[in-house]
Amino acid sequence: MSTYEDLLEISEQLQNIQRSLSLLVWDERTYMPKGAVEGRSESKAELSQLYHEKLTSEKTKRCIDELNKESAQAELDEVQKAAVREMTRDFERKYKVPDELIKKMSKASTKAQSAWEEARERSDFEHFLPHLEKQIELKKEAAEYIGYENETYDAFIDEYEPGFTAEKVKKIFDPMKKELSSIVSKILSKDLEPGKGVFEGKTFPVKEQKKLCRELTEDLGFDFEHGRLDKAVHPFTIGMDDDVRLTNRYSEENITSIFSLMHETGHALYEQGLPSEWYGQHLGGYISMGYHESQSRMWENFVGRSREFLDHIFPKLCENFSGLKKHSKDEFYRRINRVKPTFIRVEADEVTYNLHIALRYDIELGLFRDELEPEETKVVWENKMDEYLDIVPEDPAQGVLQDVHWSAGQFGYFPTYALGNLYAAQIFDTAREEIDGLKDDISQGRFESLRGWLRENIHQHGRKYKAKKMTERLTGEELTAEYHLDHLEDKYGSIYGL
Amino acid sequence: MSTYEDLLEISEQLQNIQRSLSLLVWDERTYMPKGAVEGRSESKAELSQLYHEKLTSEKTKRCIDELNKESAQAELDEVQKAAVREMTRDFERKYKVPDELIKKMSKASTKAQSAWEEARERSDFEHFLPHLEKQIELKKEAAEYIGYENETYDAFIDEYEPGFTAEKVKKIFDPMKKELSSIVSKILSKDLEPGKGVFEGKTFPVKEQKKLCRELTEDLGFDFEHGRLDKAVHPFTIGMDDDVRLTNRYSEENITSIFSLMHETGHALYEQGLPSEWYGQHLGGYISMGYHESQSRMWENFVGRSREFLDHIFPKLCENFSGLKKHSKDEFYRRINRVKPTFIRVEADEVTYNLHIALRYDIELGLFRDELEPEETKVVWENKMDEYLDIVPEDPAQGVLQDVHWSAGQFGYFPTYALGNLYAAQIFDTAREEIDGLKDDISQGRFESLRGWLRENIHQHGRKYKAKKMTERLTGEELTAEYHLDHLEDKYGSIYGL
Repeated sequence: MSTYEDLLEISEQLQNIQRSLSLLVWDERTYMPKGAVEGRSESKAELSQLYHEKLTSEKTKRCIDELNKESAQAELDEVQKAAVREMTRDFERKYKVPDELIKKMSKASTKAQSAWEEARERSDFEHFLPHLEKQIELKKEAAEYIGYENETYDAFIDEYEPGFTAEKVKKIFDPMKKELSSIVSKILSKDLEPGKGVFEGKTFPVKEQKKLCRELTEDLGFDFEHGRLDKAVHPFTIGMDDDVRLTNRYSEENITSIFSLMHETGHALYEQGLPSEWYGQHLGGYISMGYHESQSRMWENFVGRSREFLDHIFPKLCENFSGLKKHSKDEFYRRINRVKPTFIRVEADEVTYNLHIALRYDIELGLFRDELEPEETKVVWENKMDEYLDIVPEDPAQGVLQDVHWSAGQFGYFPTYALGNLYAAQIFDTAREEIDGLKDDISQGRFESLRGWLRENIHQHGRKYKAKKMTERLTGEELTAEYHLDHLEDKYGSIYGL
Repeated sequence: MSTYEDLLEISEQLQNIQRSLSLLVWDERTYMPKGAVEGRSESKAELSQLYHEKLTSEKTKRCIDELNKESAQAELDEVQKAAVREMTRDFERKYKVPDELIKKMSKASTKAQSAWEEARERSDFEHFLPHLEKQIELKKEAAEYIGYENETYDAFIDEYEPGFTAEKVKKIFDPMKKELSSIVSKILSKDLEPGKGVFEGKTFPVKEQKKLCRELTEDLGFDFEHGRLDKAVHPFTIGMDDDVRLTNRYSEENITSIFSLMHETGHALYEQGLPSEWYGQHLGGYISMGYHESQSRMWENFVGRSREFLDHIFPKLCENFSGLKKHSKDEFYRRINRVKPTFIRVEADEVTYNLHIALRYDIELGLFRDELEPEETKVVWENKMDEYLDIVPEDPAQGVLQDVHWSAGQFGYFPTYALGNLYAAQIFDTAREEIDGLKDDISQGRFESLRGWLRENIHQHGRKYKAKKMTERLTGEELTAEYHLDHLEDKYGSIYGL
């Protein structure tokens, strides 16, 4: 076997472990009995360890070193070069950090997550604080090994959104924040409750919602021969090559389950669109977390919450839920696009969402630039909520303690949610230009034109192009917040009469 | 860490991989989408390989070698000695076989299983024959490495039923065969159809069956906090320490699902009764396949198909399935204990079952004693079916091709099914003596006395005692077919008026 084939074999072995690990996680969040938490957590730790050992083995190192030599590179074609590049990236991020530190971080995360759960339960920030401090300390140490472009925080952003730096994000976020705040202020000053009464006082039986969601996933193009749809408290999607599983949640109080379904279906269609000939290779993965989120946001917000989609789905909803019949499509449209500041990020609407992220980004950057102490995060959080959204959480469970990310050491992850919204807007703008009759298609429940376009232009390329290059290929320019802001001004200007 | 602690750590790592593998298998047979077969099979192969590498690593070898030295043994207590003994056993069975041969066997099995599926589909023995030959050839080779007491076949029996040899099994099976044949002849000569019409012409809605089965599992003592009950085409149970999952199947044509449920619950209660302090250790596993089967058979046949259990369950069945009301409990009892020779082992009744096994045992032994050529198996099968059960399968799909075991290289596995029936009869005989009022308990749906007795006397000891010692401790004598035969003569003598 050639060295390149050796590397592919290692990559496939890694992917086999990763797929197993993914199934353990999927099961944990769907069907696992409650009493199995301990055994499951040990099994996951073992597979993670085996993954790590294989990724950072001397054999992997030899292959990587060899294939990155000029003479070896000269023998590789474009695809092979990209494969080596992606594998080298993953290898280096892990290999450079000493095993000792990785074990320390893993232990600290386990402790921090359980402390975070308790702290959130009791709304007790002080209980979590020492763990937050420890996480930051260890992350700073790790960043020195991993390396970064300009500053510590770059090392983390680069993990989830390769090619991005703290400064690049800041350059996008800072003006976006201002604009968003201004839109929010204008909306709040109107003191309107669009679509009031559409859901209130009605019951939406879960059985019908499930049936409808199942049909919708299929209509959107999800392939049930290679996937499943199940129930989960916190909806998520997991891709395991030829087996992609999405989940959804349902409440009797409204029918927003169709939008969380479209969100997860967006993730799932990306996974199902990845090139099957690269299954098991790093190259066959998704581009970045931001790109993944762009797919879910596009189907959720640009398709799902649009007037055109309602042409298709609203009559169906009325058939299944007779209480809706006394409301117009327009009322429904306004209700599902209502803007209302909330303490909780995952409940935020399209307009306020990126402000929740900007707040977290400000804090993370402050922490890693040593401009902010961990103990100050609670108060800074409250002040910024006040500044951006004009509401102040009364207890930290509704504020600084609401997300799991920091306890898991996932600094640099939050920005990708907001970037996902920006990618979605910018890419959808191009899609609308390039796909003849896209609006009509959506109005009539024909989703194959958009799905096919995304598959052809994004999904099937796996990780061949980096995010920056992909965005330029697709849209002719670098990522900008302009399309997101234009979209919001346009849409919410009309809803709120701004 | 001491060498003993090192060994325990390896054992726990192995168990973590094994648990992950078990979940992959469980999912494959319950919820996995059809199109995910390929990826799943690769993931399973990878985890199996990782398990094998860890089990046969130089580190494991060093620990095993060290701990088996006289000086080291002197330092260990009884439990530790048993732990080392069990780990040594598993290690040696794998370490002794060259990696090259293991890979060959694994590849041959994959090919043989897919050829077997095609062959069974087309009822074409010739299509499977070369694979059967290959399996036998490789198994003979492996046996030479593994070692055996007297003859090749011993190496395989010992894998599933440690301590047993071909001769020991033969000494039990030969007289048992004669007796069973004689009982079957007597029954067939009566030309009766006990309980005729109890199921025929009726429909038993699956929804009610499922509800009833779920309640019954719980009543039997299955802990849903640490387990699940799901549907599967071929019912099975998988134990993953604190997470034990059983499955069942349902047909609208009858209500025998309660007996397959009790069978699987028997397996599941054994798994849930294993000592939690030894989770992750070889010592914490079950004694042997035969012992596992004894637990399922005891709950299925000695409890489930008894008159006492019907006192408890028949009224409930009548409540749920009104068609049963026109039949008496006695008719129902006779129907569920009907003896009817069938081609298919998994459909066999309590009386003919062990003859299906004896037939397979005769053939396996003949093959490995070189008294029989693989090409003769089809005809020998037909002749023996004629001799034992007075029926001859017209096509090999109903005969020699019906079971997956040989294609998977699992020679020596079949006997454990029959041994399970024998253990069940012998152990239940003791249980009846030792548990005051057991019959009354069962009549009134109180299962905790039997469950508790099994847990205390068998389950909680894990693998501390070998099968032979356990049987003697429990019943005061070695395993014999007498209890099984007495039970059948007694029960079926009464049903058929022999």
